[in-house]
Amino acid sequence: MHSLNVALGARSYPIIIGSRLLGDAQYLLPSIRGRQVCVVTNETVAPLYLARLLDGLPGFDKVDVVELPDGESYKTLNTVNRIFDVLLEKRHNRTTTLIALGGGVVGDMCGFAAACYQRGVDFIQVPTTLLALVDSSVGGKTGVNHPLGKNMIGAFYQPRLVLADTDTLATLPDREFSAGVAEVIKYGLICDAPFFHWLEANMDALLQRDAAILAYAVDRCCRDKAAVVASDERESGRRAILNFGHTFGHAIETVQGYGVWLHGEAVAAGMVLALELSLLCGSINNNLLERLRSLLRKARLPQRPPAEMTVVDFLQAMELDKKVVNGRLRLVVLKSLGEARVADDTPREKVIEALKNCGVR
Amino acid sequence: MHSLNVALGARSYPIIIGSRLLGDAQYLLPSIRGRQVCVVTNETVAPLYLARLLDGLPGFDKVDVVELPDGESYKTLNTVNRIFDVLLEKRHNRTTTLIALGGGVVGDMCGFAAACYQRGVDFIQVPTTLLALVDSSVGGKTGVNHPLGKNMIGAFYQPRLVLADTDTLATLPDREFSAGVAEVIKYGLICDAPFFHWLEANMDALLQRDAAILAYAVDRCCRDKAAVVASDERESGRRAILNFGHTFGHAIETVQGYGVWLHGEAVAAGMVLALELSLLCGSINNNLLERLRSLLRKARLPQRPPAEMTVVDFLQAMELDKKVVNGRLRLVVLKSLGEARVADDTPREKVIEALKNCGVR
Repeated sequence: MHSLNVALGARSYPIIIGSRLLGDAQYLLPSIRGRQVCVVTNETVAPLYLARLLDGLPGFDKVDVVELPDGESYKTLNTVNRIFDVLLEKRHNRTTTLIALGGGVVGDMCGFAAACYQRGVDFIQVPTTLLALVDSSVGGKTGVNHPLGKNMIGAFYQPRLVLADTDTLATLPDREFSAGVAEVIKYGLICDAPFFHWLEANMDALLQRDAAILAYAVDRCCRDKAAVVASDERESGRRAILNFGHTFGHAIETVQGYGVWLHGEAVAAGMVLALELSLLCGSINNNLLERLRSLLRKARLPQRPPAEMTVVDFLQAMELDKKVVNGRLRLVVLKSLGEARVADDTPREKVIEALKNCGVR
Repeated sequence: MHSLNVALGARSYPIIIGSRLLGDAQYLLPSIRGRQVCVVTNETVAPLYLARLLDGLPGFDKVDVVELPDGESYKTLNTVNRIFDVLLEKRHNRTTTLIALGGGVVGDMCGFAAACYQRGVDFIQVPTTLLALVDSSVGGKTGVNHPLGKNMIGAFYQPRLVLADTDTLATLPDREFSAGVAEVIKYGLICDAPFFHWLEANMDALLQRDAAILAYAVDRCCRDKAAVVASDERESGRRAILNFGHTFGHAIETVQGYGVWLHGEAVAAGMVLALELSLLCGSINNNLLERLRSLLRKARLPQRPPAEMTVVDFLQAMELDKKVVNGRLRLVVLKSLGEARVADDTPREKVIEALKNCGVR
């Protein structure tokens, strides 16, 4: 077990990473201030880990559980309202603590519910997917989708603790695991070249979920993310590099319908597109694109966008994404391996060219 | 025209109070940072003031309007979702500014939508009711009701400007005007004894909407509120005194059904109950209760709770209100005229006695 800190002044919090953390009260209790707890989870995760989590929560006046349906297509305002219903029916007050037990969808909705319930109550992230462990549980982005756009409704709201028990990854389906690997690769590309090299050397062991390799990767990603978030909590500048591949990826998710492609799968194809764009902007060379494709292939991730999506589909969805400022698309491109920049001067023609180079009609 | 400042560091903003402000671009433009604007209003206010407001918004790429149904019963997550629908359909991005044109219900929902849309966009309050001018538009409390509790879902989110045009009060129905007077009286009780005396001397002129008297009252209330909010933005302490009468009042609104009693009417009866409780706690004398009742009578406001509500109704609703901490009711009581305190040690028996003294069965 070891711990890192997300340094955000009064909103700082620890990320505790390790094995056998889930049922151990010593990790959760110091971060719970009141006497009420509500666990938000889903129908897939609950049978696997809920009982173990509850073992780590002895002695509370009230522990309620909200079990949501599983999947990105349920990440809506209506589903969040079910959390509010339970909190109010069970008479939770402002001192309650919500605990998100699950993947990114559960964490995003539980965090948003915590941000809004009685104008803000405490919450804790207990991620159980690779994607949530290395990405979505850290940094305080919470929210839900709207039919017209991914993550369009939400809040910046930091948890009091991220409890990352790597044992939970043992039961993760391969497809979900691979989706998480997409975000792992992202850190190498945008801010950590040595880690990219490490991934090239260790991808097979990572996919076999070798405990030591996995622990190292989770730790490294959390450190990378914590550093970026600490430098720019509300994404007024540098934090936007974490969106590398995401504007393309969100377009895929929105147009295909939420949940058809997993978020990580859409990000994988989105990173190829973003790297293609970086190539056209003259900042990197072709070799890196091949190296990325090779890593994605190993990880059984898509290396191109869905065949049925058109250039128009992409442009329409991307222009509605959060990264548009005064009519100009803000896209993240690589300057070199391990160094990203936010470009709000990318000509539309270059974006179209990048899409076409990746086979989009 | 004059202006005061709500001092909240980086989130500070001006309240501009006066006559003929609405159609004048010089007041709105400095607070709008992007090139997109969306006005949120309701079906009652739009025919009266929308055109004038739009006169004050020349030269924007995009000005859209969302017209909501009128009334507290529509202050729901579903109605807020209609704002999101329009923002996304009309392709508003992170640089948009929402403008709330209306009373407290419109302001609370528009502010909450601004807090959540793309995790936070700018918003401006243009209050058109007395209650919104003196209370709800200032201080950043936003949100919606849940069937089980008033204002249970929301955010602390400050506007960039409050533009308080007192001319809009000319068209306000008498019942709505009186409801606003309840909050005006509240400031005298909780933090401004000289203002309470002034109100006793000037209530008739205020109710006749004498321009000078009205301007003075609005200004005084905004100053009082700005000072309290600046001292405690997120209500960890002193700000709670602004809830004087509100825990009782929220119980009335929740149990009667939202909109049956106006918020200000419920607060009026709630203040009588809170003062009765203060009397039982030994901190004030009977005379003040009579003076409050006399002011409320003049203002055509209720001086007692609804006849059909029981002690059990009150206790159940109050125990679900946000002011419960670790199982204890936190109620605001007066120590003396102009001085309030938050009491989290009020015995339940005293609350029951106060309710019974006011005729509740």
